[in-house]
Amino acid sequence: MSILVVGSVALDTVETQSGKVSDSPGGSALYFSTSASFFAPVNLVGVVGEDFDFSTINFLRKKEVDLSGLQVEKGETFRWGGRYHDNINFRDTLFTYLNVFESFHPVIPDKYRDSRFVFLANIDPELQLEVLKNVNAPILTVLDTMNFWISGKRKELDEVMRHVDVMILNDEELHELTGIINLNSAARTLLNQGLKVLVIKKGEHGAVLITGNDYFSTPAFPVEKVIDPTGAGDSFAGGFVGYLASCKRLTKNNFRKAVAYGTTVASFSVESFSFNRLKEIGRKDIDKRLELFRAITRF
Amino acid sequence: MSILVVGSVALDTVETQSGKVSDSPGGSALYFSTSASFFAPVNLVGVVGEDFDFSTINFLRKKEVDLSGLQVEKGETFRWGGRYHDNINFRDTLFTYLNVFESFHPVIPDKYRDSRFVFLANIDPELQLEVLKNVNAPILTVLDTMNFWISGKRKELDEVMRHVDVMILNDEELHELTGIINLNSAARTLLNQGLKVLVIKKGEHGAVLITGNDYFSTPAFPVEKVIDPTGAGDSFAGGFVGYLASCKRLTKNNFRKAVAYGTTVASFSVESFSFNRLKEIGRKDIDKRLELFRAITRF
Repeated sequence: MSILVVGSVALDTVETQSGKVSDSPGGSALYFSTSASFFAPVNLVGVVGEDFDFSTINFLRKKEVDLSGLQVEKGETFRWGGRYHDNINFRDTLFTYLNVFESFHPVIPDKYRDSRFVFLANIDPELQLEVLKNVNAPILTVLDTMNFWISGKRKELDEVMRHVDVMILNDEELHELTGIINLNSAARTLLNQGLKVLVIKKGEHGAVLITGNDYFSTPAFPVEKVIDPTGAGDSFAGGFVGYLASCKRLTKNNFRKAVAYGTTVASFSVESFSFNRLKEIGRKDIDKRLELFRAITRF
Repeated sequence: MSILVVGSVALDTVETQSGKVSDSPGGSALYFSTSASFFAPVNLVGVVGEDFDFSTINFLRKKEVDLSGLQVEKGETFRWGGRYHDNINFRDTLFTYLNVFESFHPVIPDKYRDSRFVFLANIDPELQLEVLKNVNAPILTVLDTMNFWISGKRKELDEVMRHVDVMILNDEELHELTGIINLNSAARTLLNQGLKVLVIKKGEHGAVLITGNDYFSTPAFPVEKVIDPTGAGDSFAGGFVGYLASCKRLTKNNFRKAVAYGTTVASFSVESFSFNRLKEIGRKDIDKRLELFRAITRF
């Protein structure tokens, strides 16, 4: 079943110990779409400037990603620049030029409205709410956010949280959102407030899935050399939502497998800059690594 | 088969968000022995002062822990005091009085020399080497250490590492020992230098086992409320070595299960101060939680 994603499309300038790329395609909506499209068709809503070179994302057209919702606006594309430390878990943001993304107002094409799965990537909660009003009874809605909105637009974010099924966030965001340090207690608090499913990303330490009646914890897939972690979280979300959209039923075990798929797709994503690694692989490679992942974690 | 452990016996004064205990029994050898004794007989070598109240560790006598190697020396017992932060992963050491532990010289009783498993808890590498010279062909030798020795007695530590099979250390220690940030690359470096098995403890993030022909990664067991993390690492080691000592053969899968048992015993240990929780439980409780742990991590 098809997935709607609304998020950013960016040109990233990234420097790590392994090298540097300039103005490479990136952004939450692109990382998500690329990753989810291994599993299900994706309808993308986002914005780029007139300078955006569509040939750099040609690979998405072969992958059932509908780009008709990608608006082209007068001006320049959102640009982000960052430099990762020797310890690649840390980075400095060198610049953020929102450009056309600053006044982004998502327009959901009519043909997108019946998307059965919705992923609200990290954008202004007010816009996320609007998106939800413009889709017809999706089966599953999934929310991402960031510290900026948790502290800056808490009321609006709370309102979005009341209208989604699943929230994906990292351990720091969970802490900031609840004020509770213990991850499990924090998660329970959010579930008691109405969320059905919580997925906590812990980067190199894996992920945890908590629902009303299930608890699943997994380490990350061990990547020998992380080249560029940019987009890992959105790649995770893409594998997670993508796999669920490919399932006949949303069972407890399928949610667990979705987390494992998210982890696996993210592990490929970080093996190169931008989408270079994800462009090389197919569903078979992902399935093969998922089996390896399962073998690594069994006792 | 029986296990020899050489390490510290201490009186801990610990303060966490949940309360405070003063002069409670602790130390690596005691945490290890308590945990390992769920699985196999333990021969303990350590030292206490004349002030040590043996009635506080009476529970060990019922658990096949031989304390005849616990020397009583003139003077006071090793004392450690610490205060944990609100984020219980961090702590400040308030005081360390080595007392009789300062001049500790392990004496291995004759009847201990045929112990088939040896755990060298975190003490001076020179003493660890001496212990190894005083045991008869053990099946498996396991080493623990800490940053203090990695930076202070590197040559001696390297020598010990050449004579043991397994090393258990945390991610920071692994980094300090190798100078390599990526955990997997760092581990490979140590294996290439001769260690057969490496176990990396990541606290609340679980553990990784790396050998020449196996790789196993596991999250931690999710403890709802950590009361006191003191001794968690030695409890892990106790469950790990203890389980192996109970196995007929040291297979790949038994090493994995040993990590899972270590994780499980540690999860009990942190649920109360000192040995209060470990005193309450039996092997059945551990096995039950191990099954729950397995269920939580499967997909």
